[in-house]
Amino acid sequence: MVFDITILGSSSATPTSKRNPSAQLLDIQGNLFLIDCGEGTQIKLRQLGKRFQKINHIFISHLHGDHFFGLFGLLSTMHLLGRKTPLHLYAYQELKPLLDQLLQLSYTELKYPLCFHEIPEGESSVLYSDKNVEVAAFPVKHSVPCSGFCFREKEKPLNVKKNIVELYDLDPVQIKLLKEGRNIVVEGEELKSKEVTYRSFKPRSYAYCTDTIYDEGLLPYIKGVDCLYHEATFLKDLAAAAKDKFHATAKEAALIAQKANVKQLILGHFSARYKDCSPFEIEAKEVFEEVVIAEDGQTYSIRKL
Amino acid sequence: MVFDITILGSSSATPTSKRNPSAQLLDIQGNLFLIDCGEGTQIKLRQLGKRFQKINHIFISHLHGDHFFGLFGLLSTMHLLGRKTPLHLYAYQELKPLLDQLLQLSYTELKYPLCFHEIPEGESSVLYSDKNVEVAAFPVKHSVPCSGFCFREKEKPLNVKKNIVELYDLDPVQIKLLKEGRNIVVEGEELKSKEVTYRSFKPRSYAYCTDTIYDEGLLPYIKGVDCLYHEATFLKDLAAAAKDKFHATAKEAALIAQKANVKQLILGHFSARYKDCSPFEIEAKEVFEEVVIAEDGQTYSIRKL
Repeated sequence: MVFDITILGSSSATPTSKRNPSAQLLDIQGNLFLIDCGEGTQIKLRQLGKRFQKINHIFISHLHGDHFFGLFGLLSTMHLLGRKTPLHLYAYQELKPLLDQLLQLSYTELKYPLCFHEIPEGESSVLYSDKNVEVAAFPVKHSVPCSGFCFREKEKPLNVKKNIVELYDLDPVQIKLLKEGRNIVVEGEELKSKEVTYRSFKPRSYAYCTDTIYDEGLLPYIKGVDCLYHEATFLKDLAAAAKDKFHATAKEAALIAQKANVKQLILGHFSARYKDCSPFEIEAKEVFEEVVIAEDGQTYSIRKL
Repeated sequence: MVFDITILGSSSATPTSKRNPSAQLLDIQGNLFLIDCGEGTQIKLRQLGKRFQKINHIFISHLHGDHFFGLFGLLSTMHLLGRKTPLHLYAYQELKPLLDQLLQLSYTELKYPLCFHEIPEGESSVLYSDKNVEVAAFPVKHSVPCSGFCFREKEKPLNVKKNIVELYDLDPVQIKLLKEGRNIVVEGEELKSKEVTYRSFKPRSYAYCTDTIYDEGLLPYIKGVDCLYHEATFLKDLAAAAKDKFHATAKEAALIAQKANVKQLILGHFSARYKDCSPFEIEAKEVFEEVVIAEDGQTYSIRKL
């Protein structure tokens, strides 16, 4: 029942010797989701021993090369390794015809169904939903159309406390009723669902916001999430440059985290000019305490509560 | 005056945790040439500390993704880092319109001139020539149109031996005549150009043959080169599979090296199925002694003679 975020790339537009362009692997209760797919993503997945054929959903935030140039290689490798399972790709629609052409040019006729889902520009929408998780896209402000993503676990079903089941020797019908939130009478005694049931854990949530300028408009979409990944391309001394390029600083990312009342902030998408990224953490901590610096290959877990 | 081959990727179609898809950096007397550009090439160049803005010529052997999917990121990074110097790209013409579209889709208007040179299909041709080196393409047999490349240094100009210059107190005109191969008379004595001049070193040569089936048709193009990189996707027990997929085995690569009378053979383009590639060397050595296994990040130098 994990909720793990593995950083595959935390550099901004140009990779460095230690940081790849943007990509992240989410493992939510054993379902693997890929967010963005910068160049080198498949190689990093291999190096980390991740079973990337188990990825069934890929979300591309926007069409700057550092967020999708690794897609062609990954799709091609999945094909070469014999994938048959459908793969769902969520991106702006302009990507689709080009992807088709590129696969054709490289003589690749995918052996698995590639299901393309268009992300609507400039509005929020639910992209995916199953019994465990819902994935929503929402607009963020960048120099080109760009989406943030929010992954929210669904509320777990009610369980009846084990000692209650034993004490009252409950049968399956009685258990079912209590799980549905209904009260029942057993041997003249009322058992209140509220009192005898529990949920295995509280739903967890994760939001991904890159690339974006400082924008309070995204607060409603990320309010109270357990973990927020927010870009911090620059430090605050370059706030003007950040604004100019529609990027954010570490301080601005921290302000968003604070205002959105999130539990944990991960900073990433660092400009290649910074050899040492520890000043990002120091700068952000002046505003928001629970902050870490993304490191390629690192996994951040959201624990069950 | 180096002639260095640096392996950036030696895996076949799918990368492994230790081997990237195909790419090599050639440093010939300080001029950097890139051969193929599989995914992750720019990242590997960074990791090796190579100054990739100094690459002015890129040669793409064929349009299977593992040989060119890293091109988009590299071209984009060169642009983002402010390149102004023209970049020459040699490839089959189908790549050009797609490259243009992809750069447009990713909002990249290159700040430097990208000069596209079409490699003619199915014939040999000189792609590039300057005072130091000539680069030729020649057809190799693969499942799709594919070119091999041969890099040959040009013969160095004649120098007059230092002790002769001093002994006869030669003036610039006399030196020039001797360098042109003409004999001169000094104080009644004939100085024969052949006897008093030398060349600083013998021209060196390197051939790149991947992807290809075992094909003796390529012998004329690579005859006697100092170093040959030849693909060996499989070991000889999979010779039938190799043939079927238009690839070669280690033994076949060694046979080509032997028949072409090359000095050194580098094997590469190993199938991802092989965790340990040392059997390739053992198999090839049964036929051809001077063989090494390509390793990502390794540089092989052709020494001056």
